[in-house]
Amino acid sequence: MTTDLLLEGRHFRRDWSSAYDVGRKAAAQNLADIAAMGAEPTALFVGLGLPGDLPVEWLDDLTAGFRDECTPVGAGVAGGDISRSDRLVLGVTALGTLDGRPPVTRAGARPGDLLAVTGRLGHAAAGLALLQSGHPAPLPSLVDAHRRPRPPYASGPEAARLGATAMADVSDGLVQDVGHIASASGVRVEIDAAAFPVPDDLTEAGSLTGADPVRWILTGGDDHALVATFPAAPPAGWLTVGRVVEGEGVRVSGYDEVEGGWDHFR
Amino acid sequence: MTTDLLLEGRHFRRDWSSAYDVGRKAAAQNLADIAAMGAEPTALFVGLGLPGDLPVEWLDDLTAGFRDECTPVGAGVAGGDISRSDRLVLGVTALGTLDGRPPVTRAGARPGDLLAVTGRLGHAAAGLALLQSGHPAPLPSLVDAHRRPRPPYASGPEAARLGATAMADVSDGLVQDVGHIASASGVRVEIDAAAFPVPDDLTEAGSLTGADPVRWILTGGDDHALVATFPAAPPAGWLTVGRVVEGEGVRVSGYDEVEGGWDHFR
Repeated sequence: MTTDLLLEGRHFRRDWSSAYDVGRKAAAQNLADIAAMGAEPTALFVGLGLPGDLPVEWLDDLTAGFRDECTPVGAGVAGGDISRSDRLVLGVTALGTLDGRPPVTRAGARPGDLLAVTGRLGHAAAGLALLQSGHPAPLPSLVDAHRRPRPPYASGPEAARLGATAMADVSDGLVQDVGHIASASGVRVEIDAAAFPVPDDLTEAGSLTGADPVRWILTGGDDHALVATFPAAPPAGWLTVGRVVEGEGVRVSGYDEVEGGWDHFR
Repeated sequence: MTTDLLLEGRHFRRDWSSAYDVGRKAAAQNLADIAAMGAEPTALFVGLGLPGDLPVEWLDDLTAGFRDECTPVGAGVAGGDISRSDRLVLGVTALGTLDGRPPVTRAGARPGDLLAVTGRLGHAAAGLALLQSGHPAPLPSLVDAHRRPRPPYASGPEAARLGATAMADVSDGLVQDVGHIASASGVRVEIDAAAFPVPDDLTEAGSLTGADPVRWILTGGDDHALVATFPAAPPAGWLTVGRVVEGEGVRVSGYDEVEGGWDHFR
């Protein structure tokens, strides 16, 4: 079970995201949390705080977004609550089933494990940077990535079956979310920044906005990729990007680590 | 499973309710929803949207309120989410277990059933009226009823075991919540307004504020009493207040029904 609050102005803007996109994204971030435990999502419950002047069409589109994100993974919205509110508020809770398997938490990483990721990294952050800079047009796929994440849902339960020792979805940024695994597991995680291919569109977005695309990959949230540790080679589709050692914290090698390491990204 | 959004200014005011009271009430209204299905609550998940200037003590007191409402019924807060927000927002989801029993829904009332209630009715509405009128001091127990409902949690699963055919908690007001049972069950429910004893403090609050205490009993929400239908005499502790007949809608007898019945209360 997992829950998230989405607040207009903080987690989404109605001028940057359609109601349909808000629905897809709100569903996706909760479904990804379920997948990151190794579970299959079953039902969503949605609390809505709605301004009195909200068009009914907006709500219809929101509902369609929830439906289209949930249906392919076999889940659905099963209930909720509606209130009037000055600002749009969504409180989303998702329920999943492990079918008797133990959950994969953040606490199981062991020295010697490999660190691997699957799904997109840095795309949503680049899309948001483009929107903020006023340059969204040239790279619509990145803006879409901000509006509508594509978490690799099926990879979560699969990784669980194939022996993942710890797992999380990347919602706060890879370095920070791996930091949660490191502290919960009582280990140190070394990330090799050179392991990440930098797609052309990220490089281009970096040029347009004056940002470093590798920084988006390492610290951008909202793509809801999955990151996990494995005692042996990761399953097909996972990119090995580091390893677990004794100690504490996260170290990123192969990349600029001035300014006191990675704390300045947090 | 049930979910509710609580928004500052709409569902609570920080100058009228302490953080502790907000926690108790937020937990209570969700736990009561679980009880009204005939289930035992197990876990709460709380999403919090918090203003940046909120004192940490406020959050500590809120947590204590949740704990003190949950612990006696064997539940606890098992997870959640925190965001910054201009206004305080609480998104509360509660999970319960039926231990294999079927849930008691609103749809099972049948002609011939008796309608019964347990728990307080009208107290929270009277307390709110006193706060709004500026006369809260003389009747602190009613103001407390607004701040901190006392739902009869154990009566829900007990009623389920003893054959309740439909059940709801009174959150919107008795007439309205019974209306939900009537429409879901495809029946008509007759409420006998004379069946409700009017406690002295409600009478006194009515005099102070110029309101009709019976109206509070029939239409006041937020006490989270339970209302249920039974095919035979209700269990001990339940007050019989009406009956189920063929037809549709809710009729309140023994009380003023001008102005088109009860729609004007809604």
